[in-house]
Amino acid sequence: MKGYMGKILRVNLSNQVSSEETIDPQIIKQYLGGVGIATKILYDEVPQNTDPFSADNKLIFAPGVLTGTGYPGGTRFNVVTKSPLTGIWLGSSSAGFFGTRLRMAGYDALIIEGSSKKPVLIDIQDEKVDFIDASSVWGLDTFESKEQIEKKLERKNISTVLIGPAGEKRVRTACMMVDMGRFTGRGGSGAVMGSKNLKGISVSGTKKIEVARNKEFKERIREGVDAINTSIAVYPYKIMGTTLAISREFESGDVPTKNFQLGMWEQSKDLDGMKMAAKSYFKEMPPTCFACPVRCSKFTEVPDGPYKVNLGPAPQYETLAALGSNCLNNNVESVIKSNDLCSRYGIDTISTGVTISFIMEAYERGHITSEQLGGIEPIWGNADVIIELIKMIGERKGIGELLGEGVKRTAEKLGLSDKGYAIHVKGMEVPMHDPRSLFSFGVNYATSSRGACHLRGPSMLFDQGIAMIDAGVPNRSTRFNQKEKGLAAKAAQDASNIIESLGLCIFCAISVAMFGMFSKMAEALEPLTGEYVTVKDIWEIGERISNLQRAFNLREGITAEDDHLPSRLLEPFSEGLAKGQVPNVAVHIKEYYQARGWDPKGIPTEKTLTRLGLDWIIPNLH
Amino acid sequence: MKGYMGKILRVNLSNQVSSEETIDPQIIKQYLGGVGIATKILYDEVPQNTDPFSADNKLIFAPGVLTGTGYPGGTRFNVVTKSPLTGIWLGSSSAGFFGTRLRMAGYDALIIEGSSKKPVLIDIQDEKVDFIDASSVWGLDTFESKEQIEKKLERKNISTVLIGPAGEKRVRTACMMVDMGRFTGRGGSGAVMGSKNLKGISVSGTKKIEVARNKEFKERIREGVDAINTSIAVYPYKIMGTTLAISREFESGDVPTKNFQLGMWEQSKDLDGMKMAAKSYFKEMPPTCFACPVRCSKFTEVPDGPYKVNLGPAPQYETLAALGSNCLNNNVESVIKSNDLCSRYGIDTISTGVTISFIMEAYERGHITSEQLGGIEPIWGNADVIIELIKMIGERKGIGELLGEGVKRTAEKLGLSDKGYAIHVKGMEVPMHDPRSLFSFGVNYATSSRGACHLRGPSMLFDQGIAMIDAGVPNRSTRFNQKEKGLAAKAAQDASNIIESLGLCIFCAISVAMFGMFSKMAEALEPLTGEYVTVKDIWEIGERISNLQRAFNLREGITAEDDHLPSRLLEPFSEGLAKGQVPNVAVHIKEYYQARGWDPKGIPTEKTLTRLGLDWIIPNLH
Repeated sequence: MKGYMGKILRVNLSNQVSSEETIDPQIIKQYLGGVGIATKILYDEVPQNTDPFSADNKLIFAPGVLTGTGYPGGTRFNVVTKSPLTGIWLGSSSAGFFGTRLRMAGYDALIIEGSSKKPVLIDIQDEKVDFIDASSVWGLDTFESKEQIEKKLERKNISTVLIGPAGEKRVRTACMMVDMGRFTGRGGSGAVMGSKNLKGISVSGTKKIEVARNKEFKERIREGVDAINTSIAVYPYKIMGTTLAISREFESGDVPTKNFQLGMWEQSKDLDGMKMAAKSYFKEMPPTCFACPVRCSKFTEVPDGPYKVNLGPAPQYETLAALGSNCLNNNVESVIKSNDLCSRYGIDTISTGVTISFIMEAYERGHITSEQLGGIEPIWGNADVIIELIKMIGERKGIGELLGEGVKRTAEKLGLSDKGYAIHVKGMEVPMHDPRSLFSFGVNYATSSRGACHLRGPSMLFDQGIAMIDAGVPNRSTRFNQKEKGLAAKAAQDASNIIESLGLCIFCAISVAMFGMFSKMAEALEPLTGEYVTVKDIWEIGERISNLQRAFNLREGITAEDDHLPSRLLEPFSEGLAKGQVPNVAVHIKEYYQARGWDPKGIPTEKTLTRLGLDWIIPNLH
Repeated sequence: MKGYMGKILRVNLSNQVSSEETIDPQIIKQYLGGVGIATKILYDEVPQNTDPFSADNKLIFAPGVLTGTGYPGGTRFNVVTKSPLTGIWLGSSSAGFFGTRLRMAGYDALIIEGSSKKPVLIDIQDEKVDFIDASSVWGLDTFESKEQIEKKLERKNISTVLIGPAGEKRVRTACMMVDMGRFTGRGGSGAVMGSKNLKGISVSGTKKIEVARNKEFKERIREGVDAINTSIAVYPYKIMGTTLAISREFESGDVPTKNFQLGMWEQSKDLDGMKMAAKSYFKEMPPTCFACPVRCSKFTEVPDGPYKVNLGPAPQYETLAALGSNCLNNNVESVIKSNDLCSRYGIDTISTGVTISFIMEAYERGHITSEQLGGIEPIWGNADVIIELIKMIGERKGIGELLGEGVKRTAEKLGLSDKGYAIHVKGMEVPMHDPRSLFSFGVNYATSSRGACHLRGPSMLFDQGIAMIDAGVPNRSTRFNQKEKGLAAKAAQDASNIIESLGLCIFCAISVAMFGMFSKMAEALEPLTGEYVTVKDIWEIGERISNLQRAFNLREGITAEDDHLPSRLLEPFSEGLAKGQVPNVAVHIKEYYQARGWDPKGIPTEKTLTRLGLDWIIPNLH
């Protein structure tokens, strides 16, 4: 089939055997690529109750169908696995050049299974798969590891995904670094890699993606680039990534502060990108992601002072808020330093920030003592404590061993689960948009397939008054409106699954498919694949993937009771720009279930599953 | 009537008599305020064939109904007159605090008529109107004049509109400066003021706008502020005004270059706001406009070098393009200097830039000699020549006397009208968006009531894929799509008339009324005025104003033949991101006429006029 490499590479670490498989065209038709195909493989191959750290868990890497084609923003891949943080479905989308080069090597997906006895690196060079001893880089941080591995491999145009010390030590919030400074941030995919004694994967290839109607596809690419470059929505991201969002979200009372306690904190503005720009911290660097006209990934340095940091990836909005305002820390240099450390250890900045802010609150409330923390006094806003705790998490030392388990397990171990300030959904720490400020996020966090997830959040646009016409939400809304939020969350989640099956960057996708106008995507897919595809088909694929993710989670024991927000997020702020506002999440979830065709227990009905061609799941669910 | 002061102040300069008139509530109902009411007065009081520079021409200042109420962006007023540049209807919208203070003094509109024998300043202090001898400030530039006048008046909280030397000398592109650094930019309102020997107007007041339902209106204000502060559309303007638009428009091939000849010029990026920010040119200053959360008006300085400029208003996008790229000049410091000079002389930067670029092209083509220009050699991109020509225009010296007449008259006088490179519509120089890049602008420029006008341009959003649902353009579009552009232009023009009757800043209006959602405006007007108003009413008012403006222009002899673009704007670019693209403007105009209910000659039909309650105009038109 045109537009696809047509093959999956399966690599077994236990016996160091690799094999190729052909993708069933029916699977492509139903799941498109990327997160869709990877989710299908996970559902089929990782049975109920698999220990995420066992050899039976798998890591499935899958670029989208547009990845590597030159289509703008077609740069992403998903790594899908069973999360050691949440125990449910995990998909982490990332970018760089890895997905593109995996396709250049000839594969639409890569399944890693089993477990190696010794530290190993998988090197893929077209169809050649080598297992390289990784003992010499085991223990090195991500930046050093990347440098050593590239030196060792002695060839150009290599992409890597690899873990730092945190992943090696099974820190449950560990991620992988992709090329230079992109990450598979959330949910612990790096820990799964570490549990397999896998340091990383390097890949290079020489193959090309065959395009059905080249001239026409090139025209779609040109249009796509044009739409992105002229989009009013994406312009701020071109200038300085997501860092400007601090001031913008500040204006809506959306920047989580002091472990989601405050609706307003003037000092959070000190973390804004404009402040970094004013200090000339941003540096021009080559693009980090294939075929991206936005280039939101920025680089920064802190030339001197206590938080000196060499040139490296700049913190993004989520990091600035998680390790900044949410810990009541407005020292931007310290956040750059924290970000640098998290990057090097390979840990998720959001989960790390939310877990540290939890500890700060526990300390303030007298629920934990300095003694328990090895003498550390985690006072709100103490940047040095934040940095110290990050080091302990990354190295799994002292209290860091516990904090690296994520906020849910930390609260449980400390007997503080019932206190209501461990801010997570299904074990996934809540990211940096507050549902009290943007109501759509409430039901979205509560029901997202990997736990609280902001990347399933184009519903944010709905909260800002943009009708999601093509997604069946024709009315405009406002952020504090209680209507149609469930509908918007469904649309946003399905849209994200579409975008991640296409392999698109969400910022690019939003520009091209202005707020869900996937007809543009259909128009691009047709000349690429030679297959006729309608917008309706595309939305159905998105919905199918959402339901399959749900089915995986239901099989792991998730119930409607898990679809809820931490109580704190339903307590109105007494100050700030979202003061007194609370989304009626229970009602929105009801609406969401109905829109999804799920029963009141949150289980897809037989009718829904049949409609989506998922009737084969029925025996597992009903 | 609540929400209005209910009175108009009429000031006759010939006999120095002022009088108060009550506004007919029927007029308010039909025209809302601002540009609407002012247009009605102009139509009624300035008869056919009035010489714009005669005592019979009038200057009608009118704040909108939301101006001064505290509603966010409710800060603007219109000055409406017969333009000396185009000979047709002119409305120039501006901001600052003038409109607010005129209302505080007790007036919804101010009519200036007659002509003074000697230079005079009108000082309004509540109902007290003084005629102050302005001989001492006649000849001073705008900044100096403002300083002197404020010193002389010895009271606080004064707003001023005043002219510089250009207006005094009847330069046809002269504008007024409003407070510090806002301007009534286009069409020569400053020259009309100068022709009346009026240096300016100062106003202060102590009255309050009575609100029908205060609590409810305050709630609408809060919602409006919130919508603006959280809007994705406006965020870049908050950061650094419109200066960032250079890079953005560059990506669409939209930045006019070399007198609209080139579709792409890499160096235009040197003019971008980010470049200015990198040099720390922007300075924090108090807000320039009443009740505005956006604060797009920025201040800048050039601390040293040949183009040293003291702290003052920064050039906006239109100026950066008009005096920069369109003259093939990428020296941003020189544009800051040029902007400073234009501000001080009080001349429109767009018209000035387009006229200078015309001269540069004429010189290159050998259509004008250095001798004719008093020895000046206007070579493309020569910043010093641009500055020299601005001085000559501002002082009405040498060739400047001709150039200050605008590009249409300049071309006529030089016998170059038929060469096709005097870029204007109806005598108004084309602003800095190219219809070959954004198709909606083609028909919009061709039909706008004051000649080529970008401020009647929310159609730009339509070109960028945003459906104008509430305006009856439900489908999304792309910039190179030939469909529904006439419809979009009509909607955009009506929307602009609504916004300027409300007295809103367009950036604020776009955020609150996300892309034309005027239901928010209806919701705000109701508690303000106590009158029930529907969205349909509001759109009808916008349409009524558009038709009355057209009627004024038809009476002055405008015909369908004047509704056309300069031929150059219909020649496809051979390079850049709008390469090969041309809007089918003739077809779009046809569609526009039909949508407006105008006959093929561009005349509103009796049916249309009757529908809009404008049947009293029928005898004049038919």
